[in-house]
Amino acid sequence: MSEVLDIGALKKTLEEFAKERDWEQFHVPKNLAMALSTEAGELLEIFQWLTEKQAARINKDEETFGKVQDEIADVVVYAILLCKYLDIDLPNAISNKMKKNALKYPVDKARGNAKKYNEL
Amino acid sequence: MSEVLDIGALKKTLEEFAKERDWEQFHVPKNLAMALSTEAGELLEIFQWLTEKQAARINKDEETFGKVQDEIADVVVYAILLCKYLDIDLPNAISNKMKKNALKYPVDKARGNAKKYNEL
Amino acid sequence: MSEVLDIGALKKTLEEFAKERDWEQFHVPKNLAMALSTEAGELLEIFQWLTEKQAARINKDEETFGKVQDEIADVVVYAILLCKYLDIDLPNAISNKMKKNALKYPVDKARGNAKKYNEL
Amino acid sequence: MSEVLDIGALKKTLEEFAKERDWEQFHVPKNLAMALSTEAGELLEIFQWLTEKQAARINKDEETFGKVQDEIADVVVYAILLCKYLDIDLPNAISNKMKKNALKYPVDKARGNAKKYNEL
Repeated sequence: MSEVLDIGALKKTLEEFAKERDWEQFHVPKNLAMALSTEAGELLEIFQWLTEKQAARINKDEETFGKVQDEIADVVVYAILLCKYLDIDLPNAISNKMKKNALKYPVDKARGNAKKYNEL
Repeated sequence: MSEVLDIGALKKTLEEFAKERDWEQFHVPKNLAMALSTEAGELLEIFQWLTEKQAARINKDEETFGKVQDEIADVVVYAILLCKYLDIDLPNAISNKMKKNALKYPVDKARGNAKKYNEL
Repeated sequence: MSEVLDIGALKKTLEEFAKERDWEQFHVPKNLAMALSTEAGELLEIFQWLTEKQAARINKDEETFGKVQDEIADVVVYAILLCKYLDIDLPNAISNKMKKNALKYPVDKARGNAKKYNEL
Repeated sequence: MSEVLDIGALKKTLEEFAKERDWEQFHVPKNLAMALSTEAGELLEIFQWLTEKQAARINKDEETFGKVQDEIADVVVYAILLCKYLDIDLPNAISNKMKKNALKYPVDKARGNAKKYNEL
């Protein structure tokens, strides 16, 4: 089965979820950018004291793995809400950014190198 | 046209992009969680000195709006990479989290209220 | 009375606190940078759904104000731990950065302007 | 020589710096919490692709070490600005939080254990 995210449908579902709770007053772009960052911090918290190896095996611990999935979901949900309220076509934005990345990080210069594009 | 994100295809494209650059050594889950948080911070930076109103009109300024789209794309790309390396089905994770949210924030208690579920 | 932070004494107290709990294994710089960012996210969470006005009056609500103080303290504690393990003289680092900021943001160019120095 | 941070003097210097640039309009608590988080993200970015060992030796590379010091300074500066505008006594807030931590993480339960206090 294909793994597809129906952003259009999610925007509608999330909008309805917010409307029912009268949360649209809170869901202004500035606040959503903050909430996305907060959730990114909660994801970070799960990993912060783990060694690289422990972190790579995090999906072997059911409870912790459930938390990781929840936090990633929260991050993407706030990204989609931002896209909804700012009229961003997310698939299009990702496709554009990936083209820019291919130009910023040409294979020959970037190989094996984690430096930022402006330091390559 | 529908707005659909083909996560399966993106996982493959992103994996290939990393492989060509020998970046898989860097793309361990702990580092990807950090990179996602860094990008969330870059998104935040665009909004930090704007008033709520200015932030809501950010898509009227072409240059700034381009940056917002790039940063949201970066966040979602790192979320997808994390899902790839940890074997997470992102649509499934989002669907599960949204069900949990519906239980944590019942309409009658949450209406017009931005409190956290454990303070409702 | 003067409001002074004895960084030297705090480094020793924090080191002892970690040693007693055998936490030095976790307190490597990479992890401490993550923990600092996690705490910054927890501070952010307190503010994310507040209007600018509500946020400015946050010190009128005793319970929330207590949380704000705790999160700011956590952020600064991790900053001091990073300084300890990386041999950074924090007062010196702050003094140097403030001199750089004065050069990056000359009064005549920066007045009333929240743009980043490279866009001034 | 002792390593002491004169928070009272810094609050005054930072206030004057902002006043000269007419930046007080931007320095509301909500925005300062965002700026602190942005700087924490910039600190994170320096560490994100480094191995634990490379990160621990980051002070051997003069240029990168300079960046680390600048970002830590930025984080603490925004923490002090928040304290200024919210009337927080930072040394007092840190002292209070450290007492809470000692109670939340008793030596016998916390030894060698990075779990959160509510999971101990």
